[in-house]
Amino acid sequence: MVRVMRLGRVELKVLDLEKSVEYYTKIIGLEETGRLGDSVYLKAWDEYDHHSLILTKSNSAGIAHFAFKVETLDDLAYYEKKIEQFGCATSRISYGTRLAEGEAVHFILPTGHHGELYHEVEFLGTAVGTLNPHPWPLGKKGIAPHRLDHCLLTGDDLKSVTRFFIEALNFRQSERITSVDGEELLGTFLFTSNKAHDLAFVKGPDAKLHHAAFYVDSLHEVFKAADILSMYEVPFDVTPTRHGITRGETIYFFDPSGNRNEAFANGYITYADFPTITWTEDKIGQGIFYHRRELSESFMKALT
Amino acid sequence: MVRVMRLGRVELKVLDLEKSVEYYTKIIGLEETGRLGDSVYLKAWDEYDHHSLILTKSNSAGIAHFAFKVETLDDLAYYEKKIEQFGCATSRISYGTRLAEGEAVHFILPTGHHGELYHEVEFLGTAVGTLNPHPWPLGKKGIAPHRLDHCLLTGDDLKSVTRFFIEALNFRQSERITSVDGEELLGTFLFTSNKAHDLAFVKGPDAKLHHAAFYVDSLHEVFKAADILSMYEVPFDVTPTRHGITRGETIYFFDPSGNRNEAFANGYITYADFPTITWTEDKIGQGIFYHRRELSESFMKALT
Amino acid sequence: MVRVMRLGRVELKVLDLEKSVEYYTKIIGLEETGRLGDSVYLKAWDEYDHHSLILTKSNSAGIAHFAFKVETLDDLAYYEKKIEQFGCATSRISYGTRLAEGEAVHFILPTGHHGELYHEVEFLGTAVGTLNPHPWPLGKKGIAPHRLDHCLLTGDDLKSVTRFFIEALNFRQSERITSVDGEELLGTFLFTSNKAHDLAFVKGPDAKLHHAAFYVDSLHEVFKAADILSMYEVPFDVTPTRHGITRGETIYFFDPSGNRNEAFANGYITYADFPTITWTEDKIGQGIFYHRRELSESFMKALT
Amino acid sequence: MVRVMRLGRVELKVLDLEKSVEYYTKIIGLEETGRLGDSVYLKAWDEYDHHSLILTKSNSAGIAHFAFKVETLDDLAYYEKKIEQFGCATSRISYGTRLAEGEAVHFILPTGHHGELYHEVEFLGTAVGTLNPHPWPLGKKGIAPHRLDHCLLTGDDLKSVTRFFIEALNFRQSERITSVDGEELLGTFLFTSNKAHDLAFVKGPDAKLHHAAFYVDSLHEVFKAADILSMYEVPFDVTPTRHGITRGETIYFFDPSGNRNEAFANGYITYADFPTITWTEDKIGQGIFYHRRELSESFMKALT
Repeated sequence: MVRVMRLGRVELKVLDLEKSVEYYTKIIGLEETGRLGDSVYLKAWDEYDHHSLILTKSNSAGIAHFAFKVETLDDLAYYEKKIEQFGCATSRISYGTRLAEGEAVHFILPTGHHGELYHEVEFLGTAVGTLNPHPWPLGKKGIAPHRLDHCLLTGDDLKSVTRFFIEALNFRQSERITSVDGEELLGTFLFTSNKAHDLAFVKGPDAKLHHAAFYVDSLHEVFKAADILSMYEVPFDVTPTRHGITRGETIYFFDPSGNRNEAFANGYITYADFPTITWTEDKIGQGIFYHRRELSESFMKALT
Repeated sequence: MVRVMRLGRVELKVLDLEKSVEYYTKIIGLEETGRLGDSVYLKAWDEYDHHSLILTKSNSAGIAHFAFKVETLDDLAYYEKKIEQFGCATSRISYGTRLAEGEAVHFILPTGHHGELYHEVEFLGTAVGTLNPHPWPLGKKGIAPHRLDHCLLTGDDLKSVTRFFIEALNFRQSERITSVDGEELLGTFLFTSNKAHDLAFVKGPDAKLHHAAFYVDSLHEVFKAADILSMYEVPFDVTPTRHGITRGETIYFFDPSGNRNEAFANGYITYADFPTITWTEDKIGQGIFYHRRELSESFMKALT
Repeated sequence: MVRVMRLGRVELKVLDLEKSVEYYTKIIGLEETGRLGDSVYLKAWDEYDHHSLILTKSNSAGIAHFAFKVETLDDLAYYEKKIEQFGCATSRISYGTRLAEGEAVHFILPTGHHGELYHEVEFLGTAVGTLNPHPWPLGKKGIAPHRLDHCLLTGDDLKSVTRFFIEALNFRQSERITSVDGEELLGTFLFTSNKAHDLAFVKGPDAKLHHAAFYVDSLHEVFKAADILSMYEVPFDVTPTRHGITRGETIYFFDPSGNRNEAFANGYITYADFPTITWTEDKIGQGIFYHRRELSESFMKALT
Repeated sequence: MVRVMRLGRVELKVLDLEKSVEYYTKIIGLEETGRLGDSVYLKAWDEYDHHSLILTKSNSAGIAHFAFKVETLDDLAYYEKKIEQFGCATSRISYGTRLAEGEAVHFILPTGHHGELYHEVEFLGTAVGTLNPHPWPLGKKGIAPHRLDHCLLTGDDLKSVTRFFIEALNFRQSERITSVDGEELLGTFLFTSNKAHDLAFVKGPDAKLHHAAFYVDSLHEVFKAADILSMYEVPFDVTPTRHGITRGETIYFFDPSGNRNEAFANGYITYADFPTITWTEDKIGQGIFYHRRELSESFMKALT
C-alpha cells in the first residue's frame, strides 16, 4: 500500500508578520528561507526541504493549510483520484503560487480544513550536511527543534475525517478518545509514518487549529525549551508534562498571534499493524496530561 | 510503493540455553513467551507480537536468521516474487515450524545470511495494554528495552546486498561508508521504516553477526543500562557514546555466547526522500564512535 | 565558624498510620527501619543514619518537629547556649524517647515550629555499602529518593526566624522574597550545608508545614517520579517544572494525610560567601514556578 | 570546626597562551576577566569571584598552584598556624602579586604541590545576577560549565598528604583506594564542602597534575560537552562514563598544552559524618571507570 510520507508544511495565519518572524526565528529557532508576497518561509535546522512553515499575514490567526509530501508524482495522481473517490473535490495549486514549491493537490476536509498533497519542493539540506556530518550544528538559536512534527485540529465530524485519512490517504489510527459507551468519537490520532501521530483531531469547532508541534529530541530539550520561553516571556498554555496519548513529553505555548505551538519529544513508534489504543472520556484528563490528570479550560478553549 | 514493516524477529544461536535465557530475561529484561524444541521465545515489554527474539541452542554462536514482517499476506507473495526476480532462491517455512508463527518466505542474502519475510504471528499485546494505558509498566526488570531495533551483519559484497534490499525489498539507504575515493563500499545502512536503520552491513566475513540492538528511549536509559551491565559483570565492548552514523546514543556488550548486543537510543528520523549520508573511510572512526573517533580492535574483530 | 550539618529528620503527623507507611514505602520508596509506640521510622536507600522520617499517628496532619544533626556532642552544647542567648528556651529530649536516637536539644522557633538539634543516632548504612560500592542498588521501589532534602514551613515573622537561624545556628540566607519596596520579607531560604536551601519559610500561618522534600538526582528522575505518582493516583499539587528560586527541578504532591511532599533535583551550590538572591513580589510567580510564572491557589493555601 | 570553603582557583601552566585562551573561552566556554604579565584570568558563568582559572605561559605544562578560599581573614591566620603546626612552612603571597586578589598564605604539600589559602578576591557576580535571576544565561558558549569543581593530583606519600588535609585544613576523606590488604594507600579523595571531593590524589610522581575538573549539571550536559569536543577535534582521554568513586558522570580530555580537563556532573553529597568508602586495588578499574571496569594506560600515564 502506497504511503503518504510526512506532514511537510503548515501555513499559519499571523497578525503581525515581522513580530511573528522574530518569534519563529529567535525563540523557536527556525531559519528564514524566503519571502513571497505577504508570506515568510521557514525551516528547522534538521529539515532538508526548503520550508516547513509558512507565515502569512492575515486579519485572524489560524491555519491556512497543511500539506503532506508524497514520494512521487505518480503518488500525487494516485491520491488525487482516491480523494475524489472518497467524495471530496480536489483542485490543483499551480507551480509558482508559492515559493520553491511545485504543483499541489488541494482538498477540503470534512472538518473544513484546507489540506494539500505535494511532491515537488526545493531541496536545501540540513545545517550539518550529508558528508561526514556532525550530529548537530554549533550556533543553534532558541528552541531549535529538529523539524515540524504534527498538527492537532478541531472539528465536529471526527468519524468522517478519520475515515477520510484511512480510506483516501492510507493513514492508520494510533489512538482514539471515545465516550465511555464507545459511541461517540471525541479524538482521533492518525499516522502515515512510524510516528505516534502525524495529524490529529479533537472534537470542537470546524476548521480550527489547536496546535502545531515541533520536535525536540529529549525531555532535557523540552525543559530547556520551557526555560527559553520563560526568558522571552512567551505565554505558556501547558508547562512540561507527559501525554498519556503518544507517551510524548511536551510543552504548549502561544505564538504572538495566539496560535498554539508545542515542543514535543519522544512518543512511541507505530507500524501498520499497530492496534488502536482507546481512551475513554472518563480518563481523558490522564490521556492528555498524564500527570495533572485533568484538562484545563485554556487547553480546551483557546483555538485559532 | 509497498513497504516492508519492520525487523520482527532475530534468531540467535547460543551455547548454553538456560544461561542465555537468564541473561536475556534478568539482565536485558525480556519476557519468555514460549519454548519449542531447543528454542526459547522472548519479547520486550513494549512489543505486541508473540516474540522478537528466538534463542536456539547450538554449537556455535551467531545469527540463525532474521525476519521482516510485512503488512499483508499479499505482500508476502509480492516480495517472494521480487526476491526471485532479483535472482535469489526462495522457499517457504511451513506453519508450525516455529512457535506462534505462520508461514514465512525464506531467502539467502548475497552475504550468506538467512532472511525471512512473514506476516502471521500471534498477537500478545504489550505490558500496558491498549485501554487507557500507562506509559510504562511498574516492575520492569533489567534494561527493559522497548523493542528489538536492528541488526548489523558483516559480509563481503556490500554493493549486492544493498541492491538486494533496495530492489527486492524496497528499502532505502540512509548512510554508507566508502573508501576515500568513493569506489569501495565499506558499510551500508538500510531502512524500510522511518528509522535511521533497520538493518545494516559492514565489510567483513560473510554470514556473520556484528550485533543485535534493542531500543531504549533516552540517553538516561542508555546510562542506566550500562550501570546494570556493570552490576551483573557483563563484558562491555563499547561504553556509553554517540554514533556519528544515525546520531544514536549507544552501548555494546556481549551475551553469554559472545553475541554482541547493543542498547540504542534516539537516532534521526528518515523518509523515502532521505538523501544518503556518506562517511569516507578516513572519518570512519568518528562515524562509528563520535567521541573516541577511532575504531577499536574488538569492535572490528569480535563477530559471531 | 561551627556549622550545623544537615536536616537529619522530620516527624510528620499522619491520620492513618498504615496507609501512610504503605505510601512512604511503596510509592516514595523509603525503607521502614523500626516502630515505637504510634510512630514508624523510615530512611531513604542512600542515607546512613537509622531514620530521616518519622510518621506519627495523630488527629491532624502537619509537622511535629524537624531536627538538624550537628557534628559533635560539643556542638550540641555550643548551639544550645547560642539558642538560649538568642532568647529561645531550650529543653533536652532524653535518650530513649525515640527509637535509635540519643539526646536532643529542643527549641521552639519564632514561627511556632518545634525544632531539635542532635548528634547521636544509630548508623545503619546505605543500600550499597562502603566497600567497592555500586552507584545504586538493584530492586529500588517507587520514587526511591536519595535522601530527605529540606522543608518549607510557614510563619508570620520571617525576619525573626531568619535572624534565629543566622545568629543562633550559623545558617546563611541564599534567597529571599520581598515586597517590591524591599520592606517586607515574604520568603526566606536558609542553608547550612552547600545546598541551595536546607530549610525555608514563606509568609503564612505559624507552625504550619508547606512541604517536606526528597532528593532525586536528575530531571529524568523527577519525571519518572511524576509517572509513578500518576500510576498510583497520588494527588498532584504541581507537575514537573523548574523553580526560579534554587533553580531546582520539582514536583509537588500530597501524602494520604494531606502533607505536601516534593521530589526535588539539582539546584545550585552555595558557600558561606554566597550573595543572597532577591526576588521581588512582582516576580514571585517566576521565582516559585519558573515556567508557569504565576502561583496557584492550592500551592498557597494547602498547609498542614 | 572551622571549614575551608572551596577550591577557588587553579593556576595552570600552558605552552601557548593565546591558543590556550582560545580553547578555554571558545570550547570550555569560560570568560576572560583580565590579564597581568604572562597570565590570563578566567571565570565560569556561574561563579561570583573574579577568576577561578589562571593560565600562565610556561615552558612546561602542569599546575602552578591551587588555592582554597576561606570564609574570613581570621580563618586565614587560623589555618596558617595549623599548617605550620603540622610542619609545613608557610609564606605570604602579597597583595598585587596577581590580579584582583588580596594576600594569600602559601604552602608546599608533602607531595610537592604548591597550595594557597586566601580570602580576598574581587567580586564580579554571575551571568544571571542576584535580582530575580534566570536559571541560566542565553548566549552561553561551548561547554559552559557552572564552575571549577576539583583537581586530582599525583604524589608518592598519600598518607601524609591525607593527614595534612585532615589535620591542618579540617578536610574529611570521602573515599580511598588501598592495596587489597589495606596496607598501602593508592588514592585519597578529600572534601571540605558537601561535595564528593574537592581535591584528590592518586599514587604517582610528586608535584604533577592529573586533571582539573569543571562542573556541568547533568548527564545530558556531559554528553553535549563530549559532542562539542568532537566538533572542535579536542583529544579525548575518556569518553562519557560513570565513576564508581563519587558516582559522578564524566569525560576527560586535554587542553592544547596536554593538561587533562574533566567535565563532571552529579556525584553524591557528603557531610562531616560521611563514612570513608574503600576501594580495593582489585576493584580499582570499576572504581575509576564504572562501566569499562579497567584502567587505561593513558589515564595512568599522561600527567603534566
